[in-house]
Parts: sequence; C-alpha cells; structure tokens
Amino acid sequence: MLYKSLNPHGGDVYSEKIELDFSSNINPLGIPGSVVCAVMNSVSDMHHYPDPFCRELVKAISKYEEVPEEYILCGNGAAELIYSFCEAAAPDKALLPAPTFSEYSLGLSRTGCIKESYYLDPDSFFDLDTGIIDHILQKQPDTVFVCNPNNPTGRLADEKVLNKLLEQCRKKGIRLFIDETFLDLASGTSLKAYLSEYPGLFILKAFTKNFGIAGLRLGYALSSDAELLKKMSQAVQPWNVSVPAQAAGCAAMNEKAFLDKAVSFIKRERPWLAEQLEILGLTVCPSDANYLLFYSEKELAGALRKRGIAIRDCSNYEGLEKGWYRIAVRPHEENEVLIRNIKEVLNG
Amino acid sequence: MLYKSLNPHGGDVYSEKIELDFSSNINPLGIPGSVVCAVMNSVSDMHHYPDPFCRELVKAISKYEEVPEEYILCGNGAAELIYSFCEAAAPDKALLPAPTFSEYSLGLSRTGCIKESYYLDPDSFFDLDTGIIDHILQKQPDTVFVCNPNNPTGRLADEKVLNKLLEQCRKKGIRLFIDETFLDLASGTSLKAYLSEYPGLFILKAFTKNFGIAGLRLGYALSSDAELLKKMSQAVQPWNVSVPAQAAGCAAMNEKAFLDKAVSFIKRERPWLAEQLEILGLTVCPSDANYLLFYSEKELAGALRKRGIAIRDCSNYEGLEKGWYRIAVRPHEENEVLIRNIKEVLNG
Repeated sequence: MLYKSLNPHGGDVYSEKIELDFSSNINPLGIPGSVVCAVMNSVSDMHHYPDPFCRELVKAISKYEEVPEEYILCGNGAAELIYSFCEAAAPDKALLPAPTFSEYSLGLSRTGCIKESYYLDPDSFFDLDTGIIDHILQKQPDTVFVCNPNNPTGRLADEKVLNKLLEQCRKKGIRLFIDETFLDLASGTSLKAYLSEYPGLFILKAFTKNFGIAGLRLGYALSSDAELLKKMSQAVQPWNVSVPAQAAGCAAMNEKAFLDKAVSFIKRERPWLAEQLEILGLTVCPSDANYLLFYSEKELAGALRKRGIAIRDCSNYEGLEKGWYRIAVRPHEENEVLIRNIKEVLNG
Repeated sequence: MLYKSLNPHGGDVYSEKIELDFSSNINPLGIPGSVVCAVMNSVSDMHHYPDPFCRELVKAISKYEEVPEEYILCGNGAAELIYSFCEAAAPDKALLPAPTFSEYSLGLSRTGCIKESYYLDPDSFFDLDTGIIDHILQKQPDTVFVCNPNNPTGRLADEKVLNKLLEQCRKKGIRLFIDETFLDLASGTSLKAYLSEYPGLFILKAFTKNFGIAGLRLGYALSSDAELLKKMSQAVQPWNVSVPAQAAGCAAMNEKAFLDKAVSFIKRERPWLAEQLEILGLTVCPSDANYLLFYSEKELAGALRKRGIAIRDCSNYEGLEKGWYRIAVRPHEENEVLIRNIKEVLNG
C-alpha cells in the first residue's frame, strides 16, 4: 500500500505518535487567524471546481511580490512546481550543490537528466562559494539549482557569490533555479529584481513555511519566461490548486505583519536554541533561517522519536554523513522540551 | 497571465458572474454535512504536511470499495491520476471513443502517444458497441480508454459489450482504463470484481462528483498492477493530497446513505428535466447519469451565460458538432429556472 518511495523528508507525524514535530520547517507562530478564517469561509465554495487560472490569488501575489501577474504561476505546493519545472524545462545536464533539498534531484530523475553535484565545504558551514562558477565552466550544465537559504543548512548565500553566479549563468545562457521558499523567514534578499532582464531566472516560493499551511499545499513560481510557465501549466492537470488553498493564499498575502513578527521571533529564539545545543557539546551550523543543522556523535532521531519528538535525520542528504540533524525553531516552551530531551538522550 | 490553455471544461464560475452552474456534474444534493465538518475540523491539522501515503484514507476506501488496500492510489483529483497514469503507463498507441472526456487525450499528448479515435454512432445515442473490438483488432492499441457512464452522453455501457471488451483486452494484453467517476450516481456495475485477475485493468474514481467536493481535489485509482501504481506515485510530488481533502475523503466513505439518496433524487428528477427539454423541441440523449446531453439548433450557452446560467457547450468534444450541450441534474427549483430560461432564449 505504501506506493510512494519511503518518504525521505521530515514532517511525517503519521507513522508514529508524534507530540512535537521539529522535523518540518514551518513558521513557529503557526497560521495567521485571517488565513484560518479564509479556509473556513471557503467551505461554502467547495462544491465549485477551483479557478484553474488562480486569478484572484495571482493578483494578490503580484501585489505582495511587486512583480507583474504574467510572471506568476501557482502550484499544488512548491514540490509540484519543482516537478513541472523539470518536465517543462527538461534540462539535459543540471548542477546541484550538495547538500541541498532532495526534490530537485528527484524531479530531474523523471526526465533522464544528467546530474552533477557541487560539494559544499563542511569547514565553511557548507556555504556557497565561487568554486561553483569554476565547476559550471568545467561541467557545462544547462541548469543550476540553488536553495537560498540552503536547506538543511539554513545558510544564506553570500550576495556577491550569488550575483557572480547569476552573471555567469546569464552570460552562458544557463537557467538558474533559485529556491527562495525560506527566504522571507530568513530576511534575505530576493533575486526577483532580475526577473525581467533575465528570463533564464526561475524563483520558487511557497506559502507552506511562511504561513504555516503545509497541509493545504500552495506554492508559486516567478519567471519572465512566458513559454516556460505555459509549458509548466500544461504539464499538470487544470485544477491543481484547491479552493481552500487559493482562499488561504489570498488572505496570507495581507499578512506581511505576521511574517515580520515571525522573523523577529526567530531572530530572538534561534541563538538561544543554538547556544543550548552547543552547551550540550554539539556542533551547530550557524543559521540564518527558521531551522538549525547540527552534528551529534550519538544517534538522536530514533531516540527522540521514542519520546514522541520528531527531528530530521539528515544522513540521507547527499553530501552529509550520519550524525547531522536538522531542527525547526519552534515556540520557546517546545524548544525547552527538545533541549531537555536531547540532554537526557546524550546522558542516557 | 492565463497560462493554462483556455479551460475547455465546464465549471468555470470565475470568468463571469454565474448564479446557476449546470456546466459541472456535481451531486445535486451538495456535500454531506459530515464531510463539511471533517474539513472544518482538519483546519487544526493544516500546519502539518499531509500524509504522503494517505494511510487513513486508503483504509476507508478499501472498506467502502471492498478492494485490498494495495490496489488503491489517491490523487489530487481524478485529473491528476489521468496524467500520472499516462506518464507511468506511457502507452505507445491508445484507442479512445469519441465523444468522451478530453483529459485522457490531453494526458496522452504529454507523452507523445499515438491516439486512435473510435467514433460512436449518434443514431444509437453514442453507445459503446462491439465495433470497438474490431477497431482494436485493426488498430492494435496497447491501451483502451472507456468512460462509464460516458461523459458527456451519460450512457452506461452495455454490460455484454463491456465484458467482451474486457475479454479482448485481457487476451491481447491491452491495458483497459475505465473511468467510473460517475458510476455510483448512475447505479452502474463496476468492473472492480475483475481487478485481481486482470492487472491490465485500471479503474478511475473520484470524490468530486459523488460528494460534491470539486474544489477540494480528491480522486483514486484501483488496480492490481503494483508496479504501475508505484510508478504513478513517483510521477507526482510526495504530498499531492492535501490535509482537508484526506479528511473529507475519510468522512465521505461513511456516507453511502447520502449517495443512495442522491441516486433516488436523480432517478426522479432526470426524466422530468429530459421531458421538459423535449417539450421545448430539443433532442435529448437518454441518460443514466446525473447529467443530460441534448441538441439545440439555436445557440444556448452564450445566451444563458448572459442570464447568469452556465451550461456546457460540447462543440469542442471530438465527435460532437456545434449544437450539443450538457447540463447537470440540479435541485428541482434550479432545474425549473433553467427550463424557463431555455424556453425564453428559444422563443426570444
């Protein structure tokens, strides 16, 4: 019955009784009240097919992102957009940093693309460096994937490196796929200003993390390559974004203040959490995002799961070894429970 | 901004102000109360990723359909399953009756499949006949698509014809894709009894029509071909079925009595609606389903749309000419309004 290849991600709260989920990187403040209300109200429209063009939602995103409506394509979660990008762009050779989010590679596997890995240096916190440009010149990919901030490290790419990468890609006619799904919670700078001048630039964003609605499935893509977006939209069925997801998205686009509040909270809470892990003797990768990557000699994920706590075992990320774990920054009380439990496991 | 090829289906209540929608074939009794409650309650789980394996839902469907859990795959609406079937089965040559639901053909277009049409006879209400078997012998497809009852005709396939078709497909090792999304509302006989003995049989079902939740997106496939279902599940992203859709589906599987009530209502109301159309001089295709195909010399869809009423102009169905329209059987008061308006348009 389990037809999906064993779920390689976090967030599986269904296999066992999980009381605290640190394995998926959701906004620690949860879902804005207005978004909950919008979903509740949308029940009265649930008997209609969803708008296949997501017209109201595209308008709301356009206003929020300050990009033209024709640059926007919505999807049934960011993951669907990764898959439809891979199908529509159909890269012959793609370059992916390692470690990074594994769905790019899974999406590329469907189209028979050659995949080249650029291994990030653990001694520099797995930061993106200009070595990737040499690697591009050597391997000559037609598409480069970058996650900013990177998942699972939480590191924002250096703007100079990113700009050099963008320049190189543009010069060589290489498509640049930038995953900015965690960017808002990390207060990073988007590359969206370059969209109109560089049609090879493709930016992925999601509502999942920013507004806590992982269960509703809603993401969007930004690109000025109209032909690509059209092909992507035809790679999926017409009614891919549900009525409640569209309603939630429209409401969320008015919740910039909620995001700001979350960013402030994360900025305050993340250093405390990192410090506690270091006090316990664990090696922490300094993060810009709403999650933390750390290393432990002692096995933690299985031990914590027995205590009803899920964290992300990152040993299945290409470029990471056994011992790396990722946790989300959660409300302070939950973080305290996590730290207490890790301490007990380490001392047990 | 409208990246989807212009929506060729009914149900678009977003383009213009539509007060009555007869263009999408939803259960006229709407959504069961328990399903509405389940969606409302699921809001408290919306911050979790959905279960990628739909475990609870698969259990509920297994009990409802009386088929083993391992025969079931859920999707983001039946439409997604059509697309992932086409990708995973990757037919080289497919045979499709005409007219029929256009998404099979659209799904096949993505994979470069050769498509052969078997034109159904308007003089026999477009009924499936044994001529399709000769056509199979002649054209030698590896996959045959049949919609039962057919969309847009509402005609149930003759059981003898269907059994002969099944036999022929099994003998020749041809995959048989049967779309039974409207079967429950038409009290037809499912082919699911043949699933275990014939792995080439693939049955499509949906919650959309039966339980009125078109906006939530939920369908499922039944097949004993484990390899095919696995490939289909890998053709889509891991979290394709949302939290509210899974919750709604679980609740709906306890609503057999609701379905029975809908079937009784449709059996009572459809003949009245057909009779009224005939009184107006229109040619009606006798239907077994919750919708009616009819022919009018005078243009109706555009004229009714101006009056806030949507009906389905079927002239873009392969095998149908201008003048064919499809309407859903709706609550009696709505049907009266429709008939009154058609009368005014015809006399106008």
